[in-house]
Amino acid sequence: MTLNDLIHNPGSWLASGPDAGGVSFPGIIVSSRIRLARNLEGVAFPGWAGEDECTRIQGRVSGILQALPSLTPCLALEMADLSPVDREFLRERHLISNDLAQKSRGSGVVIRQDEVLSVMVNEEDHLRLQALRPGFQLPELWKEISTLDTELEKQLRYAFSPELGYLTACPTNVGTGLRASVMIHAPGLRLINEIEPIIKGLTKIGLAVRGLQGEGTEASGNMYQISNQTTLGETEPVIIERLIQIVGEVAHHEANARARLREHREATVADYVGRAYGVLSHARVLTSQEALDMLSALRLGCELGMISGLDKDSVNRLTLFSLPGHLQKSEGHTIPPDERDQARARLIREIVCRATVV
Amino acid sequence: MTLNDLIHNPGSWLASGPDAGGVSFPGIIVSSRIRLARNLEGVAFPGWAGEDECTRIQGRVSGILQALPSLTPCLALEMADLSPVDREFLRERHLISNDLAQKSRGSGVVIRQDEVLSVMVNEEDHLRLQALRPGFQLPELWKEISTLDTELEKQLRYAFSPELGYLTACPTNVGTGLRASVMIHAPGLRLINEIEPIIKGLTKIGLAVRGLQGEGTEASGNMYQISNQTTLGETEPVIIERLIQIVGEVAHHEANARARLREHREATVADYVGRAYGVLSHARVLTSQEALDMLSALRLGCELGMISGLDKDSVNRLTLFSLPGHLQKSEGHTIPPDERDQARARLIREIVCRATVV
Repeated sequence: MTLNDLIHNPGSWLASGPDAGGVSFPGIIVSSRIRLARNLEGVAFPGWAGEDECTRIQGRVSGILQALPSLTPCLALEMADLSPVDREFLRERHLISNDLAQKSRGSGVVIRQDEVLSVMVNEEDHLRLQALRPGFQLPELWKEISTLDTELEKQLRYAFSPELGYLTACPTNVGTGLRASVMIHAPGLRLINEIEPIIKGLTKIGLAVRGLQGEGTEASGNMYQISNQTTLGETEPVIIERLIQIVGEVAHHEANARARLREHREATVADYVGRAYGVLSHARVLTSQEALDMLSALRLGCELGMISGLDKDSVNRLTLFSLPGHLQKSEGHTIPPDERDQARARLIREIVCRATVV
Repeated sequence: MTLNDLIHNPGSWLASGPDAGGVSFPGIIVSSRIRLARNLEGVAFPGWAGEDECTRIQGRVSGILQALPSLTPCLALEMADLSPVDREFLRERHLISNDLAQKSRGSGVVIRQDEVLSVMVNEEDHLRLQALRPGFQLPELWKEISTLDTELEKQLRYAFSPELGYLTACPTNVGTGLRASVMIHAPGLRLINEIEPIIKGLTKIGLAVRGLQGEGTEASGNMYQISNQTTLGETEPVIIERLIQIVGEVAHHEANARARLREHREATVADYVGRAYGVLSHARVLTSQEALDMLSALRLGCELGMISGLDKDSVNRLTLFSLPGHLQKSEGHTIPPDERDQARARLIREIVCRATVV
């Protein structure tokens, strides 16, 4: 298995998955993710260790990871071997973080073939375990990542304090080292101008709301990542359970927003979806940002039954493959930004043209 | 003939007309117009005369106007009888000015059936004669308006000074009382970012550049009205000849811009036209401003042979009939603004849907 084999997959986070219970619109909850921060006992954190030390750690850890039952079959990548386009591609797949994408010798990632489980080596911590699935699947992910964590703990001694829990490079991760997050697609709440108060409310009760590409990014394509901030003083199941409950409520708000829009503001939704269809099927130049926003509207159109001849999975695939890394990776070569906008428009136009607005 | 009969006409300024000589793209010069400001001897200007005096003048003048050979057959309207929608409709047709649209008792307009010649009574001056034709026809208009002026001068004594020429309410019109103007459609110069320097240049040589709806309006739909500022110290033929020469040059600049765009920036033009087509054929809510801008792009597409199944005359008709007054007049009743945007989108969508992007 090589990095290029991943291109043919739909990407684990944008495939179709189960939604929140009782929510009447599919696809509101796009994907779920859990990550665990772990470090090796008696070894400096990656930020303090030198490049040689990191390389030594990586060599040792990578061998162990590739042999773990939970990660088989897998792909092991060293950052030093990856081109800028490869890095962008992996970042867009949510398989490496923005931080790891900047790193070189001594850092890497091991990815299980189905992309559900992966481990970054020498990002901020020695190990960042990740479990990622489409739809609303936090309990399943917790089970899977726990198994991986247990397998790994048999091979390595983690830095652990009986008082604090798992020790991490950044104090905000000390304790469980856990961050659970859910990506939600909320065009309905945006259209009725209720997304901002909801984000404020979530922040007040200690949750973080981020954009499509994680920390420090703006919400693109009406995608919002909701995650826990607290890692200390509560058990993992408690943290996850609370997130499930709150995200379920947000998903219900979004479903209600869509129902209200469809009932009382039919022209607003039809305009929003129709314009996106019109632009995507005729534009010759599309920036990444505009493509995300328009595909979000098209996705809503599919979910409300306003688009025929195009299913949500195709829209999801377009969303992923119109990102710069995917676009260049699937064309097989680097493309300058202005030509990229034309290639993106062509890719999208050819698919969207086959659909019609009902 | 009644006001409602005008609705069935295409409007004289947006029909098809001859272009500047040697210009290789049709429709760059949208329309030409000449107006003459005239006042009656020994009578206060409308701004100083009371309402009763104005009414007396109007009664007297209106009778004379309706009997003139140049204006037969005609429609005589009193502002006091016109609804807000009627006023807007006439303003959009360029048959009354923004100023006259605000007036009531004592003001009016006499319009020849084909809308080429018209006379506003008691706007800023007692009489504002207008000749208006599609395309580039200033010499023809000068001939027609001169005939009308001569006919009128036989019936009325104009306020005239041997030193200054025709006397007018505003000193900027004293002398010839003439304003000649040409409406030009310049999306090409806008797309290559050369419209601003051209407007600055025109202003420097003493010409005024205004928007679609005349004085104080912004350029909408890439329509620019170029006119003389000076009315004193030159004969009418000299003023008109200079305008013809300069507007001809601007039209050539626009034609060159289009040729360059088509040759070197094909994606830019295709994107501009394609997006407009996509939005117009799918939007459910369209403001007047957006409709003007998008129809401008569609018009360019027709002229460059990029749109099939829709001719420029249909685009012109849509441009006029999507303006608020025309929209309401053709629907036969007043429509609240938000419903207007939906009615506008529907009107345009039904026509544009029949066309395709080549």
